[in-house]
Amino acid sequence: MSDHKYLVGIDFGTLSGRAVVVDAADGKQMGTAVTEYRYAVMDRTLTAGDNQPLPPEFALQNPDDYLEVLATAVPGAVKDAGVDPADIVGIGVDATSATVFFTDKEGEPLCNKPDFKNNIHAYVKLWKHHGAQNQADRLVKVAEARREKWLGRYGGVLSSELLLPKALEVFEVAPEVYEATDEIVNLLDWLTWRMTGNLTYAEGDSGYKRMFQDGKYPSYEYLEAVKPGFGHVFDDKMSHEVLPLGGKVGELTEDMAKLMGLTAGTAVASGNIDAHVVVAGTNAVRPGQLTAIMGTSSCYVVNGKEYHDCPGTFGTVLGGAVDGLWGFEGGQTAVGDIFAWFIDNCVPAAFYEEADSRGVSIHELLAEKAAAQDVGQHGLVALDWHNGNRSILADAHLSGLIMGQTLTTTADEMYLALLEGTAFGARVIVDNFEDHGIAIDEIVAAGGLLKNKFYMQLFSDITRRPITVSLSEQSGALGSAVFAAVAAGIYSDVYAAAEAMANVEHHAYVPDEDRARKYDALYDIYKEMHDYFGRYNGQSPMHRLKDIKLQVFEEQRGYVAE
Amino acid sequence: MSDHKYLVGIDFGTLSGRAVVVDAADGKQMGTAVTEYRYAVMDRTLTAGDNQPLPPEFALQNPDDYLEVLATAVPGAVKDAGVDPADIVGIGVDATSATVFFTDKEGEPLCNKPDFKNNIHAYVKLWKHHGAQNQADRLVKVAEARREKWLGRYGGVLSSELLLPKALEVFEVAPEVYEATDEIVNLLDWLTWRMTGNLTYAEGDSGYKRMFQDGKYPSYEYLEAVKPGFGHVFDDKMSHEVLPLGGKVGELTEDMAKLMGLTAGTAVASGNIDAHVVVAGTNAVRPGQLTAIMGTSSCYVVNGKEYHDCPGTFGTVLGGAVDGLWGFEGGQTAVGDIFAWFIDNCVPAAFYEEADSRGVSIHELLAEKAAAQDVGQHGLVALDWHNGNRSILADAHLSGLIMGQTLTTTADEMYLALLEGTAFGARVIVDNFEDHGIAIDEIVAAGGLLKNKFYMQLFSDITRRPITVSLSEQSGALGSAVFAAVAAGIYSDVYAAAEAMANVEHHAYVPDEDRARKYDALYDIYKEMHDYFGRYNGQSPMHRLKDIKLQVFEEQRGYVAE
Repeated sequence: MSDHKYLVGIDFGTLSGRAVVVDAADGKQMGTAVTEYRYAVMDRTLTAGDNQPLPPEFALQNPDDYLEVLATAVPGAVKDAGVDPADIVGIGVDATSATVFFTDKEGEPLCNKPDFKNNIHAYVKLWKHHGAQNQADRLVKVAEARREKWLGRYGGVLSSELLLPKALEVFEVAPEVYEATDEIVNLLDWLTWRMTGNLTYAEGDSGYKRMFQDGKYPSYEYLEAVKPGFGHVFDDKMSHEVLPLGGKVGELTEDMAKLMGLTAGTAVASGNIDAHVVVAGTNAVRPGQLTAIMGTSSCYVVNGKEYHDCPGTFGTVLGGAVDGLWGFEGGQTAVGDIFAWFIDNCVPAAFYEEADSRGVSIHELLAEKAAAQDVGQHGLVALDWHNGNRSILADAHLSGLIMGQTLTTTADEMYLALLEGTAFGARVIVDNFEDHGIAIDEIVAAGGLLKNKFYMQLFSDITRRPITVSLSEQSGALGSAVFAAVAAGIYSDVYAAAEAMANVEHHAYVPDEDRARKYDALYDIYKEMHDYFGRYNGQSPMHRLKDIKLQVFEEQRGYVAE
Repeated sequence: MSDHKYLVGIDFGTLSGRAVVVDAADGKQMGTAVTEYRYAVMDRTLTAGDNQPLPPEFALQNPDDYLEVLATAVPGAVKDAGVDPADIVGIGVDATSATVFFTDKEGEPLCNKPDFKNNIHAYVKLWKHHGAQNQADRLVKVAEARREKWLGRYGGVLSSELLLPKALEVFEVAPEVYEATDEIVNLLDWLTWRMTGNLTYAEGDSGYKRMFQDGKYPSYEYLEAVKPGFGHVFDDKMSHEVLPLGGKVGELTEDMAKLMGLTAGTAVASGNIDAHVVVAGTNAVRPGQLTAIMGTSSCYVVNGKEYHDCPGTFGTVLGGAVDGLWGFEGGQTAVGDIFAWFIDNCVPAAFYEEADSRGVSIHELLAEKAAAQDVGQHGLVALDWHNGNRSILADAHLSGLIMGQTLTTTADEMYLALLEGTAFGARVIVDNFEDHGIAIDEIVAAGGLLKNKFYMQLFSDITRRPITVSLSEQSGALGSAVFAAVAAGIYSDVYAAAEAMANVEHHAYVPDEDRARKYDALYDIYKEMHDYFGRYNGQSPMHRLKDIKLQVFEEQRGYVAE
């Protein structure tokens, strides 16, 4: 044992889980390791089961993949750090949120049971599973009719990604799964449950994703009005204690200590949403600072002293990101995912050959070619709704669009248009916050997209905000370690812990006024498309397309969505 | 010499020229040869000159490429046919129309002169050159204000592709070229001029592309009102005789006979528009038959006994396609071009590898994958305006669009959406004819797209019309040979010649009612997009994008379009 104390932070993303070991004194990263999920995202066929085709909008995961992260990434990070496990005093986890489990009373996911192995509804519904849009729409409709006060906390809309629509989807479409379920639990709570044997709910996640507001859940009467028989869902299947951020769930069990290569009895902090934990990981706790977690999808969190009704926010929770402040959240359902889709599906071989011959990645090559273009030169505008829209429209049935193609349009031009489209999407969110009294004077960014410097400058130009960047490559896992430090009693609260452990570069990017001005003209066009397709008076053509797509699927497979 | 008489038909397309030798008795193809244009389409840089960058919307050609076709494809076809040149009694040509030359009085294109070698306006402006939209808009505006009766013959709009906007563009933007020009002439007339030494104008082309209606051109007063100084453009630079379809321009000169490997004195028929000549080449002369020439772009011609005002038609000319009937023309600026753009710019290597390993073309592979999809399964709708819209919007500033993309959208799905988009575009044209009293009960198809049987069935399903197909692979060149037969005196008129020489398969495709019905729902969405972006009340977002693009180009290059 040494004088230094260490913490483990574990960050469960969409495609992989990463562990870090950091020094409790200054947040210095000692070691890290990552484990890719074997089954990744099941969105076409049920590869963990009988390979049956999945309905459109489905996105499932296999829980074994998360345990594999605990069993490999954690010991890997400890080994990489070269520290004594006995000096590790706390564990914090963060995870994709509203990634929903249906388990028995011991926490065993139903999909692991023989009867449910091939039941698509028994699997983990990943955050970006969009099969519950119909349920989300009805939850809103009834809440509006009953004037449920809590609805305003979600901007007056409910994303289909939240836990409740997903629970209702299973109740309606797969009653056999619902009946066999003892606990409905989000990934981050499931993880701390597995580690400690104690099932509790994290407060931030409960507010944002489980509709826990002002100390209570939506009422039995409301839930019955949505769907008779569904009224007891919280009493029956979600009745455990809610813990504040930085609270201690319990201590690591013998079995899990063995699996993870740590010491039994280590403090385990209540989990946090992968995006929100970055607020602590970057010490971006001041009102006016928008924490931007930019990766596969992007999340935006800003703290405010006062509550504001802000339509189109994904969620507003008192103490949701830091104690004592209102945490306002917005998000984009796909950012890096869109770029990844594009390079996999839309880029001809010549670009890959050039990248190979020059020893750069395809993203680097395309960003370089994008950087060589003047603003507006390509004549394109793209809507970044390939995975629907979370903020400010909360509509999973929207879809991607690219406009302005000619016979001389090239792949690098379309790539740039998609980068711009995602930045325009972020600007809509920033402008919407401002329009509703929540000032944003700085963006504090973290996440995988930071390595694309061209994109970061573009993001600054288009949002017209300076961008401070995290200097930790793993600011999510670092944020979890910050909360672990609090749970372990190293710091008195998250403010002190974040101040000591976070490390950022102030205003690494500032807007280029000339480019910003030129982008305003393209943004006007984006905004017009946004409103035309997203706020369509009647039924958006995009909705009609998705309806047709679903109808075809039903005819093909005999699958009927409620 | 044999008892058989033969004819040469030469078809000048966008990327190549093809010659056929056919038997005058039955149209049987004896031999053929094709020559690709060395400079193809110059749309990014002036490769025939100093490689200077070209403004957006430019599409130029090098006239040497056409002479190369005469010097190689014609002798090649004769050799392939194995006939004695002395038995060849007539030559007919057809060409892309409104492909405009600026020449001296001997017919030498200005771009061939040292002073103009690097002047972009001295080159041949290809049909799809769209640099004169501004001029077209103003020509319409003044014609409307003056209530020029002939405007109705063009559906109330003028495409920027017509000869007159292009001439005005040169007058305004490159006065040095205009000054040095003795003759402004379309490609098909330039070709017969070169072959015979006689400059005449073909009647069909003159009506459709040179605004020659009821025996006269637009008046001096009108042209001066559009632009002072431009009033004498027809008197000064286009004052030769107009010949009817099948008329004889003259006889092949010694020099040209030598170049082409034919006999001096052979009759040369007045030229025809590449699309329109197919009406004769497929014997589709009956009212109600829509001749569809489906290739790089697509043209549609239907004959009618009576004149109808039909907004959005590209041109309406009495005797324009066959003597005595009104020829109504519509068209799509890009069809095969869009598919070609897509496979060059948007298809990842894996598809090419699969095509290679199976020994099929990339189009065959994609069509096969498209055929495996149910209607609407992809959730996509595309607007086929990558090269603007000719009919029924006549707006070169529109652009392509694809809507409905998700993170699981694949290249073959987008390929199908583009195929469908072009067929939807054709349906708009067919419906528009019907809505204005011009019935269409059958489509008679010819052109390069016929080999894509999947597309042809799709076209039938979406337009809900039976499709008769040409059995000649070279129905354009065959059509030219039909007119050559008339000019050579083999037949008394084009009706007799076409009846004897054309060969088609009746109703090779008929609509599949189930698919047609499903496509109606997607067409509704296409039509809504069509009207939103194309008939935008105010300025279409697509126009604004193109304005921005042009402005960027101007800033980059110091180029100013009038």
